[in-house]
Amino acid sequence: MKVAIVGYGNIGKFVLDAVLEAPDMEVAGIVRRNITNNPPELAPYKVVTDIAELGHVDVAILCTPTREVQVHAERYLAMGINTVDSFDIHQAIPALRRDLGKVAREHGTVAIISAGWDPGSDSIVRTLMEAAAPKGVTYTNFGPGMSMGHTVCVKSKPGVKDALSMTIPLGTGIHRRMVYVELEPGAKLEDVTAAVKADLYFASDETHVMAVDCVADVKDMGHGVHMTRKGVSGRTHSQRFEFSMAINNPALTAQILVGVARASMLQKPGCYTMIEIPVIDLLPGDREQLVAHLV
Amino acid sequence: MKVAIVGYGNIGKFVLDAVLEAPDMEVAGIVRRNITNNPPELAPYKVVTDIAELGHVDVAILCTPTREVQVHAERYLAMGINTVDSFDIHQAIPALRRDLGKVAREHGTVAIISAGWDPGSDSIVRTLMEAAAPKGVTYTNFGPGMSMGHTVCVKSKPGVKDALSMTIPLGTGIHRRMVYVELEPGAKLEDVTAAVKADLYFASDETHVMAVDCVADVKDMGHGVHMTRKGVSGRTHSQRFEFSMAINNPALTAQILVGVARASMLQKPGCYTMIEIPVIDLLPGDREQLVAHLV
Repeated sequence: MKVAIVGYGNIGKFVLDAVLEAPDMEVAGIVRRNITNNPPELAPYKVVTDIAELGHVDVAILCTPTREVQVHAERYLAMGINTVDSFDIHQAIPALRRDLGKVAREHGTVAIISAGWDPGSDSIVRTLMEAAAPKGVTYTNFGPGMSMGHTVCVKSKPGVKDALSMTIPLGTGIHRRMVYVELEPGAKLEDVTAAVKADLYFASDETHVMAVDCVADVKDMGHGVHMTRKGVSGRTHSQRFEFSMAINNPALTAQILVGVARASMLQKPGCYTMIEIPVIDLLPGDREQLVAHLV
Repeated sequence: MKVAIVGYGNIGKFVLDAVLEAPDMEVAGIVRRNITNNPPELAPYKVVTDIAELGHVDVAILCTPTREVQVHAERYLAMGINTVDSFDIHQAIPALRRDLGKVAREHGTVAIISAGWDPGSDSIVRTLMEAAAPKGVTYTNFGPGMSMGHTVCVKSKPGVKDALSMTIPLGTGIHRRMVYVELEPGAKLEDVTAAVKADLYFASDETHVMAVDCVADVKDMGHGVHMTRKGVSGRTHSQRFEFSMAINNPALTAQILVGVARASMLQKPGCYTMIEIPVIDLLPGDREQLVAHLV
């Protein structure tokens, strides 16, 4: 299976690790916008600005910013290349699924979208919990960990040189936002705090903004989740389920992407989220042996 | 979707609850070996000794002892009826999958096997954890709780009037089996103990067999599981995952069976374990709405 890595930021670096550890994959190459300043670990690979320069590619793993996913995916799907991504704007997933599904079916290719950990592997657990107890409430509690989206939002505020937004779980799906900012010379913390708290990203959560000398000194890519469901199986109440993990965020996202890249080779043309593909397809190896080992 | 419930013991009763709560299912009838002594709650339904008497049936939910699953499933699959079961002899699952797969493909039907909570929903979590961190060890710790399969196994031994097999988790996937038996007059505890310990169900676990006056007085159908995995995503170590639940055992098994009965209508002819079907297929309702709600 020849795999192209598109984008070589946080996620892309960890995807390269996971592809190299996969027994059934080969690096077709890395696609970057700028190829003049490649890090030394890319020396063994083709690094190009256009995927067409890589020759035959089975799957492209999209490690670009979320908002660039659709344009890349549509082009690659039309070129006969499967795509996988970790698109994470929850509200926009159904539309992306429809749009990519149309292109994929027209060109006999497969897209698997929103395949990180949330959305992604957590979505499978949420679905399974709902199947196990159809009536009830699931709470998804994130963190403690760095939220990429919230951090980018804070960085965009005037007077902010660098930022880190940490998500702290308070239970029942309620979160506190701990925001650490490195201020530009002359910027006032109270102005930045007001701007952050007024933003839609933070408006509904308890938010604390603090100034630090150096954001890099407080940054850690560990993250976690704790999901709970209490519900009813048939007519039997008080069935309880919990799922939790403590993980390096980009490393897990990358590993899930590599699993769905493999799974993309086994689906009929179309666009899928992770809850629509069998979990066995994420793994390499003989199917009967996997059943014997895992069922 | 017309559903037949085959067997009306512990699981069968809870399956009836779950089918009645399902918005997309109808009870075609209940199949029992002996229909002369039906409980009053079955009055509204056809109760028969042969599924052929029920007219059109889409899916048969097998709630018989595990060792009777294959013979029923092969017959029903050949009659054009999908089957689902919670067959729980781990080592025998690949052979059952092959045998039923052959019959199902010949007759254009679908079997989903070993679909309870373990094997079953736990198998999906195990597979997902392995996909998230391919290198590492998963421990499945059961209980404390009553094991249905082990209890039925003990009840089948000569000299046993009634039985309860409790599973006690000792950590790292090691379990103790606490077996409570009510003996037939004249039966010897040492003979029963030897028969139990020799059975494949018990051969590899620390097992204690005790005689009690009345098994009903010590029976509680609560159960649980605690699964853990510590592993490597790509080249990043110490990724940690946990799944646990505290549940009424037959109620959860029944709910999962009802979910896979629904899913059986969406698969190509053949035999599947739960890790081979998409989790979304377990749920009723519009697919796009499910994606929007769960992904």
